[in-house]
Amino acid sequence: MSLTVKLRISNQLNLNLGQTSINNKTEFYTPRIRTKPIYHSNPLISTTWHNKPITTMHVPSYSSSIKSSLIDPDGGALVDLVVPERERAKKKLEAEALPQARLTKIDVEWVHVISEGWASPLRGFMRESEYLQTLHFNCLRTESGSLVNMSLPIVLAIDDDTKTRIGSSPNVGLVGPNGDLVGILRSIEIYKHNKEERIARTWGTTTPGLPYVEEVITPAGNWLVGGDLEVLNPIKYNDGLDHYRLSPQQLRKEFDRRQADAVFAFQLRNPVHNGHALLMNDTRKRLLEMGYKNPILLLHPLGGFTKADDVPLDVRMEQHSKVLEDGILDPETTIVAIFPSPMHYAGPTEVQWHAKARINAGANFYIVGRDPAGMGHPTEKRDLYDPDHGKKVLSMAPGLEKLNILPFRVAAYDTVEKKMAFFEPSRAKDFLFISGTKMRTYARTGENPPDGFMCPAGWNVLVKYYESLQAEEALQQQAVLS
Amino acid sequence: MSLTVKLRISNQLNLNLGQTSINNKTEFYTPRIRTKPIYHSNPLISTTWHNKPITTMHVPSYSSSIKSSLIDPDGGALVDLVVPERERAKKKLEAEALPQARLTKIDVEWVHVISEGWASPLRGFMRESEYLQTLHFNCLRTESGSLVNMSLPIVLAIDDDTKTRIGSSPNVGLVGPNGDLVGILRSIEIYKHNKEERIARTWGTTTPGLPYVEEVITPAGNWLVGGDLEVLNPIKYNDGLDHYRLSPQQLRKEFDRRQADAVFAFQLRNPVHNGHALLMNDTRKRLLEMGYKNPILLLHPLGGFTKADDVPLDVRMEQHSKVLEDGILDPETTIVAIFPSPMHYAGPTEVQWHAKARINAGANFYIVGRDPAGMGHPTEKRDLYDPDHGKKVLSMAPGLEKLNILPFRVAAYDTVEKKMAFFEPSRAKDFLFISGTKMRTYARTGENPPDGFMCPAGWNVLVKYYESLQAEEALQQQAVLS
Repeated sequence: MSLTVKLRISNQLNLNLGQTSINNKTEFYTPRIRTKPIYHSNPLISTTWHNKPITTMHVPSYSSSIKSSLIDPDGGALVDLVVPERERAKKKLEAEALPQARLTKIDVEWVHVISEGWASPLRGFMRESEYLQTLHFNCLRTESGSLVNMSLPIVLAIDDDTKTRIGSSPNVGLVGPNGDLVGILRSIEIYKHNKEERIARTWGTTTPGLPYVEEVITPAGNWLVGGDLEVLNPIKYNDGLDHYRLSPQQLRKEFDRRQADAVFAFQLRNPVHNGHALLMNDTRKRLLEMGYKNPILLLHPLGGFTKADDVPLDVRMEQHSKVLEDGILDPETTIVAIFPSPMHYAGPTEVQWHAKARINAGANFYIVGRDPAGMGHPTEKRDLYDPDHGKKVLSMAPGLEKLNILPFRVAAYDTVEKKMAFFEPSRAKDFLFISGTKMRTYARTGENPPDGFMCPAGWNVLVKYYESLQAEEALQQQAVLS
Repeated sequence: MSLTVKLRISNQLNLNLGQTSINNKTEFYTPRIRTKPIYHSNPLISTTWHNKPITTMHVPSYSSSIKSSLIDPDGGALVDLVVPERERAKKKLEAEALPQARLTKIDVEWVHVISEGWASPLRGFMRESEYLQTLHFNCLRTESGSLVNMSLPIVLAIDDDTKTRIGSSPNVGLVGPNGDLVGILRSIEIYKHNKEERIARTWGTTTPGLPYVEEVITPAGNWLVGGDLEVLNPIKYNDGLDHYRLSPQQLRKEFDRRQADAVFAFQLRNPVHNGHALLMNDTRKRLLEMGYKNPILLLHPLGGFTKADDVPLDVRMEQHSKVLEDGILDPETTIVAIFPSPMHYAGPTEVQWHAKARINAGANFYIVGRDPAGMGHPTEKRDLYDPDHGKKVLSMAPGLEKLNILPFRVAAYDTVEKKMAFFEPSRAKDFLFISGTKMRTYARTGENPPDGFMCPAGWNVLVKYYESLQAEEALQQQAVLS
């Protein structure tokens, strides 16, 4: 028996999204095409190994009665932890009388994530058994014995004083940053918050300068509290973007309404350039060629915590809407919504969370690119992660077998054709790679990127943002000087 | 659906090994009792969740024709990579003509481990896909789609020069520390050795002073080479202990010969004191009470790399033999053999490897204690790992479902009864905990431990070892001074 995973194999499928390398060694990946979970013990299926060529596939016949069950949520049912309206007054009274724990802004983002079922079947902040499984195995065993993927610890830290205040109470009231009651955590378990171990196992490094570590973990308490969550009211941000914050349940309904027979999700935390658009449109075309009649794109920007030099959410949402207005992406077959999770920048570990959460939202295809959830090393001149590890780890992750992983073809600016195009190693010198950092530098310095890099209306949004940023900085400097 | 793992549940089984806490909070663990793997999709089995009370169990009826299949090796068949004698001359010629990689002493220990099938179904040093699965998931997916546990990276590091020398050769000759040809690695893959990521994900810390890191990883090259292994000759050490080095195949044969209907493995790297013996004898008694007719103990000291202040292997083996001679353990129902693996001191991550390897040797019960594979923090005054995490992680680890995990009852010196006994929280003050460090201090200073701590003949072995060590040190000091 050989355990070898052939990651470099010829792609025998029509859906050839597989040319993924930007160096001279062209690599091909076989996308995993599944419409239903494959159970390992099914004797009719000879192999379930992800990266093997799949020679037969089931393409569903189109029907007008398709339900939102393109893919089952993890654990079989979507978790919904928002207290029904008629019970809220009573639960609020109860929460007021409980010992209380104060939530940070980012804790509230996690409450949002858990309460809407993005982390299904997780029903609250992790207890120690879930935390340990996440750190060691990147997956959780459900009561039925099957594994669901869970790669990031979703935990609530408390300090010594809060632990003392809680004492032996089995339940805790959760209070938001402004003092408003957010929810109740029930049947709690308090356990040690070994920060170094958490960081080392999540990021694979303890280098200083990891944004989530510095913002969230270092200042946090030395204890974690897990339990079953109840949320008193749906989480709202009142920032003019709440209408974009569709829950997994709302997304599944919308896919139904549009009679989607395939949903492909695209996670991003950057403005959409024409290379992204090329990729998404190409994916749709290829899904159509495979026999799907109505593939729907879920353009799904991350809306929680991001690092300081990323483009803010409101600017990104405006930029995305221009891309749709300009027809770069087709509004008929695209849903733009906000994914409420905070960002860890934990590369191969985090991309699993990004994919897993989209299963719960009903996506059965997930697009993965170069260095997903990666960033530059905080102190060395290199990427923090091997840019290929993200898609490799994702393609092998336990609990994601039912999701079809679509590895990116790398797009770059073709200086001959003057447009974004799939990179061709045979004429590498014609291509210009414009990284997120480079794009932000263009916008900040007022320099225009090459024609065809991004639709002009979308680009304008970025230019205006950086202009306003500079004006603000100038004002601040004046205030300091005067 | 709740994901909560109830680790503190009443133990409903006869096999009550479960009292594991040494503080006032008595905790009970339900040992997992399985005689056959439970497949998750089997509709006849309502739950496969490890720590649930198991209300029915299959106790095999005794038969004189029991075969070595108490438990299947991972992947279904034991890997054996030693070249048959008739082919050795030819393969040796081939290896001589190949580009070569030099092995360290510890690399050879891993060659030993892999070649005898302790790591089945692994057939060589890990390629990148196996390495990544190990780091992120602590398990490997086999071609059949099932998961086998694999928590430690079993990898071969090479430096830049060796990489250059190998060039594009698909095969590499492996040369031992003394220049002797050891084997061939075929269809190789060379990939980056990101040491920091490997250390962080394996140990959950990057603190300086981890013995395996300092001995093996820090001095190693920046590349890893994986491939299929062939070993020219069985690995021998010619240290007078080779007869203890039984392969998994030899152990399985011996269990057959003894007509074992249960095999319980005890991993150790320290001398056996009477607390260990109490535990092992108690386990046997309880297995008999459960209906097993001939449970056999595999007393299985680790024989590869250990840290400098651990007791050396030859001394330990002599001490173990005294324990059997003195009848503290029954030679009729005990097999003493050497487990050839090097030691990582990686706590919850490593204990999985220790358990998994014993599955391959035919053990279907595995005893796990406080802080398995742990050590003191190199720079802080605390254990490196939470002492309870090892058994918790082990009990939840993917790929170990078919193994019955037996958590320790903690034994300590009962100052009233003047013997090693199971700790009773109700009279905690009567008990004296004698750690490995404390035991070594006794032996080093010539102080006797309390009566009944260890059999006198076994203790003498330790005393003599430390005397010889001190004599040697004195000689060295003299040499330096003169």
